[in-house]
Amino acid sequence: MGDNDDSKVFIGKKKAMAYVMAAMVVLNEGPVKLLARGRSISRAVDVAEITIHKFVKGSHYGEIKIGTEALENADGISNVSSIEIEILPAKK
Amino acid sequence: MGDNDDSKVFIGKKKAMAYVMAAMVVLNEGPVKLLARGRSISRAVDVAEITIHKFVKGSHYGEIKIGTEALENADGISNVSSIEIEILPAKK
Repeated sequence: MGDNDDSKVFIGKKKAMAYVMAAMVVLNEGPVKLLARGRSISRAVDVAEITIHKFVKGSHYGEIKIGTEALENADGISNVSSIEIEILPAKK
Repeated sequence: MGDNDDSKVFIGKKKAMAYVMAAMVVLNEGPVKLLARGRSISRAVDVAEITIHKFVKGSHYGEIKIGTEALENADGISNVSSIEIEILPAKK
């Protein structure tokens, strides 16, 4: 599986376990990237830790990137922090 | 400056700018580590982005680590996600 949208899980306002499940499905095939913005960043970190330590034995962190995205809303453009957490499956 | 507490900034519930100021003071001497737990993780990412892009020209990310800490509270022990974001000063 390449770097397409299928290998990305966008973290929003649902409970962490919903995203853990989605991440597990992707990890079964290859690496997964968890993407989150603003307040959801804390949840993305929770999802990563739960996935790695509780559900997918041997999975581990790949690259962790931090950035800023410009979001357009009613008040104009605002800058929001973002995170991209890569999780790699267990080595075979 | 070594890896002592002076080079760490613990991110809590204050406004991001308070921590940006603290990080800038440390960065003036050497690398700084931003530490945060739980909901404050999002704020730590904001602090890092603001420090790097708006205040300290040439500073850049070092290692970014994610983990889990066991916290004792009234209900017993609960696990909380944590992040450690290293920021390195501009190369001289």
